[in-house]
Amino acid sequence: MLATRALLSKQTLAVLSRQPACFVHHGDYGNWGNTNIAVVFSGCGWWDGTDVHEGVYTMYHLSRNGARFQMFAPNQQQMQVIDHMRKQPASGENRNMMMESARFSHGQGMMQMHDLSKLDVNSFDGVIFPGGHGIVKNLSSFAKDGKDCKLQNDVERVLKDFHRSRKPIGLASMAPLLACRVLPGIEVTMGYERDENTRWGNWPNSNMVQAVKSMGARHNVPYVDEKNKVVSTPSFMWETDYHYHYIFDGIGNMVKHVMRMSTK
Amino acid sequence: MLATRALLSKQTLAVLSRQPACFVHHGDYGNWGNTNIAVVFSGCGWWDGTDVHEGVYTMYHLSRNGARFQMFAPNQQQMQVIDHMRKQPASGENRNMMMESARFSHGQGMMQMHDLSKLDVNSFDGVIFPGGHGIVKNLSSFAKDGKDCKLQNDVERVLKDFHRSRKPIGLASMAPLLACRVLPGIEVTMGYERDENTRWGNWPNSNMVQAVKSMGARHNVPYVDEKNKVVSTPSFMWETDYHYHYIFDGIGNMVKHVMRMSTK
Repeated sequence: MLATRALLSKQTLAVLSRQPACFVHHGDYGNWGNTNIAVVFSGCGWWDGTDVHEGVYTMYHLSRNGARFQMFAPNQQQMQVIDHMRKQPASGENRNMMMESARFSHGQGMMQMHDLSKLDVNSFDGVIFPGGHGIVKNLSSFAKDGKDCKLQNDVERVLKDFHRSRKPIGLASMAPLLACRVLPGIEVTMGYERDENTRWGNWPNSNMVQAVKSMGARHNVPYVDEKNKVVSTPSFMWETDYHYHYIFDGIGNMVKHVMRMSTK
Repeated sequence: MLATRALLSKQTLAVLSRQPACFVHHGDYGNWGNTNIAVVFSGCGWWDGTDVHEGVYTMYHLSRNGARFQMFAPNQQQMQVIDHMRKQPASGENRNMMMESARFSHGQGMMQMHDLSKLDVNSFDGVIFPGGHGIVKNLSSFAKDGKDCKLQNDVERVLKDFHRSRKPIGLASMAPLLACRVLPGIEVTMGYERDENTRWGNWPNSNMVQAVKSMGARHNVPYVDEKNKVVSTPSFMWETDYHYHYIFDGIGNMVKHVMRMSTK
């Protein structure tokens, strides 16, 4: 058996073990697979943009699993700038979402931030929205309008295009709000439905769960909607002190399901 | 043997297997070990502060390995604000290092950003400086003065205090510059010494290697200076497109060596 395995290519082994080829790590062989994922940012920082941990974890897991990816953000002003020390709006400040999102990139090669208006569903196999308050402040008007919120135009277009094309959509922390607003009847998770004092952390944003239900979504802790190809992970909907690795694992699972569903 | 093992506590097993207790993952048992690490930030973004990936990877690996940690940054203005789309200074902008560094935190519980002037060596078992251009622009004057640079006062104090106390110092990408300036004769790595077109990436900052040598440091690719308890990893000194997971692994190794050396 061992001798037989040695004769098989990695691709063949992946098929034999029912593992999508995109999960096989080709790092040392320079084969990055065919999966190309768009990642949509909304600034840089939990309180007014994309959470740095959720954004970085998403990019890491795509890299680790051998995907290609490109980064996008709207070329528009943020709703506000939050002083992250005081958690209060910083007076007189104004920042551009795309410029701030570019802090996730180093600006060279493929790793540049692109204008979201240029995101074409035909060039990608899936799309991921990391979370952060940019979801409710910049990519939608949820912070102001709640369940009746409007989505930023390109965000609405991108979500509908990927859904219509049967390409997977990955969502972290509060990002499921966006999909629930324009894709009726999908199934998502945003964590526990009550702010229970669970061990090591709280669930302070459970009101958002009620909002997505009133948008017509089903809310479940299982987070893979196979029918609609929507994958969500509660991520920092859970407030925690030191337990960042649980958030990391949740985003890792979300990324793997998106890659599995995007297999052509 | 199996029956005997079942009777032993996790701590005892750790000793028997020569693994420091801080490496044993107690996640589900609420025991976070005794290791407490200070992490020093210099803003938020590769070109004018702490790189978001290096900062997030450091926090993740500390979390995964069961350490406690606290976050610090100087409560001072940054040298400049860089538009990360154009990689040019943004005119008329001014940002505070501690406020921008707070974008790595969520602001609750222990996970707040603290003023670096309050960092007391007696409260910690080790210190880590993630990299980014904040190292050469905010925590030192290297961008202006090269090898004759001055360090921000608290950065110099902290490095000397931890070294004198025989507590480990972890350094990523360009952060070794800081330690080399004030701790004569230490051994560090900042990657390859020439900008070789190695597979999948370049080494564009090799001039910094010459600078640390002229500061009296020894430069080696092995990155653990056991004598001085200084651990470095080249990280984003290597310019890469998709291969973020190699950077992640390097920071993971650095964090584990810091934790090993900090065992009381």
